Amino acid sequence: MKTPATFYHAGCPVCVEAERQVADALDSNRYEVELVHLGEQKDQIAAAEAAGVKSVPALVINGAPFHINFGAPISALKS
Amino acid sequence: MKTPATFYHAGCPVCVEAERQVADALDSNRYEVELVHLGEQKDQIAAAEAAGVKSVPALVINGAPFHINFGAPISALKS
Repeated sequence: MKTPATFYHAGCPVCVEAERQVADALDSNRYEVELVHLGEQKDQIAAAEAAGVKSVPALVINGAPFHINFGAPISALKS
Repeated sequence: MKTPATFYHAGCPVCVEAERQVADALDSNRYEVELVHLGEQKDQIAAAEAAGVKSVPALVINGAPFHINFGAPISALKS
């Protein structure tokens, strides 16, 4: 049973770098990595916020939020 | 040839959580993960700053700094 890891991003340069370097570095044998573009999948914003995500890029591993550098606040993705 | 990944921390609760959930999630077949406690290894602070690390916990992958949440600023570790 793999551990869920969701990488939330918005396509911003900071997000792309974090995806390329951090999300891609996770061990795919142990983690089920899902990539969610909150700018395109606005229906996922509520789930991200419920997990404690305040900004993107962020990685939610096993329910715990880890903000990686700073690209944009969640609020900017709602409009 | 594995990619170098250095996890800088200071033993703080935010650091411990990030180490347990993010640093440990990296694929050890592709990454050579090193853990550096900057509170105990103050001689490594200059290297962390040179890589762009402003706060801990942070992960430097292949030379690029990724700050993960926020535990403490580097400046607090110098005294």
